[in-house]
Amino acid sequence: MGSSTRTLKIGIIGFGTFAQFLAKTMIKQGHLISATSRSDYSGFPGVHFIRDMEEFMGLEHDVILICTSIVSVFQVVKSIPFHRLKKPLLFADVLSVKRTPKKTPVTVPQDSDLVCTHPMFGPESGKDGWKDLPFMYERVRVKDETLCSSFLAIFENEGCKMLEMSCEEHDRLAAQSQFLTHTIGRVLSEMEIRNTPIDTKGFEKLVQVKESSTRDSFDLYSGLFIHNRFAKQQLHNLESALERVKETLEAGMSNN
Amino acid sequence: MGSSTRTLKIGIIGFGTFAQFLAKTMIKQGHLISATSRSDYSGFPGVHFIRDMEEFMGLEHDVILICTSIVSVFQVVKSIPFHRLKKPLLFADVLSVKRTPKKTPVTVPQDSDLVCTHPMFGPESGKDGWKDLPFMYERVRVKDETLCSSFLAIFENEGCKMLEMSCEEHDRLAAQSQFLTHTIGRVLSEMEIRNTPIDTKGFEKLVQVKESSTRDSFDLYSGLFIHNRFAKQQLHNLESALERVKETLEAGMSNN
Repeated sequence: MGSSTRTLKIGIIGFGTFAQFLAKTMIKQGHLISATSRSDYSGFPGVHFIRDMEEFMGLEHDVILICTSIVSVFQVVKSIPFHRLKKPLLFADVLSVKRTPKKTPVTVPQDSDLVCTHPMFGPESGKDGWKDLPFMYERVRVKDETLCSSFLAIFENEGCKMLEMSCEEHDRLAAQSQFLTHTIGRVLSEMEIRNTPIDTKGFEKLVQVKESSTRDSFDLYSGLFIHNRFAKQQLHNLESALERVKETLEAGMSNN
Repeated sequence: MGSSTRTLKIGIIGFGTFAQFLAKTMIKQGHLISATSRSDYSGFPGVHFIRDMEEFMGLEHDVILICTSIVSVFQVVKSIPFHRLKKPLLFADVLSVKRTPKKTPVTVPQDSDLVCTHPMFGPESGKDGWKDLPFMYERVRVKDETLCSSFLAIFENEGCKMLEMSCEEHDRLAAQSQFLTHTIGRVLSEMEIRNTPIDTKGFEKLVQVKESSTRDSFDLYSGLFIHNRFAKQQLHNLESALERVKETLEAGMSNN
């Protein structure tokens, strides 16, 4: 993959915390950013914010990046006025659930290209730069190789660990790692765990997991569960592992 | 507390991994270490190892440090030939469960002093030194203040965060932190979690918690559960928190 540094005109649909986080680095790299969103972000520095979706789609873009939440993506994609596009371009998404390429939540016109991506980091874990942080992508439909490479170079140039893998493989692995982490974090939050004067190093890590999981929205967590078909099994695995650990403890007690 | 650096003659009962870990620093500080244990550790550098407990108790010691596992401590303490002591001295323990001072597992002759301690770290978390790591202690019965301070100074001089608190308070906090951490670690181990190419920072922390929990013996974990009277409630809290999180997820699914 070439790390060309061509200036891209990038339009972002959905301009919440995560999109803003990505936009800052894109602006730093010299790309031209426009955005549209349900809420008004017209004051965001360096971004041409357009409230009206029809007008937004009529702008000249190289890439349209879909940054909505998982729970709203189906509805948002359905409402995009694709007929306003002046020319085919590259669509990209950064959703935490990817599903299979044929069933991706992001359905775009056949003459446009599509790359599905998932940066495995966010405003907290990526606050000191993106070096060595994993960036997953699948080139679902790419005719304009140069354009797609230029877009991926945004992440490559920041030092991300670039991981080309299928959407299905992503979801299988993300259920085992990201969804499980969020679940443990939410459980610890339900338990209201907090630092004690005698914290072990391990417990300090759990407090951090709790805090970073609950900084993300419940919508994200719920989306990971509802739309990742591997998540339900993972939740079941967690429950039965806890049950087995409990049984082992109780067996040890009755032997004592 | 004075940080006197008087050379102490320290006898250690139970010379497993944790005792060896502590002994290394005591030797570095110039203290004279003897030890006895079920297994033979006579080759351990800098330690006068005595297999026979009668002979061990007849040596001249300033401090006797009890380093057995929680599950065996009652039996070990019962078998100590206290009548062989030439003079009263300071007993100390490093058990992960402390109970109340009146019900401590460590019962020693009334004319000897007793300090209950718990270094909240081990060979892994303390491998780069003990600076800022928490060290809990309760002076249960101290007549010879100078001797007790000299013993505590071993940890103070290494930069430990010295925390004087009751054994009961320790157990309450340790159930919320250390026992919970071990439980999560054991559950993740049951699930056989492992690193994926797309690990988030949070998931990396969980893998570390799994690895450090399973490096400790199952006996330690079982002891935390059996002998810490707050642990059972904590396990119950974990189960019901998971149940609530699951219900919230399922409610979100049926609304979708």
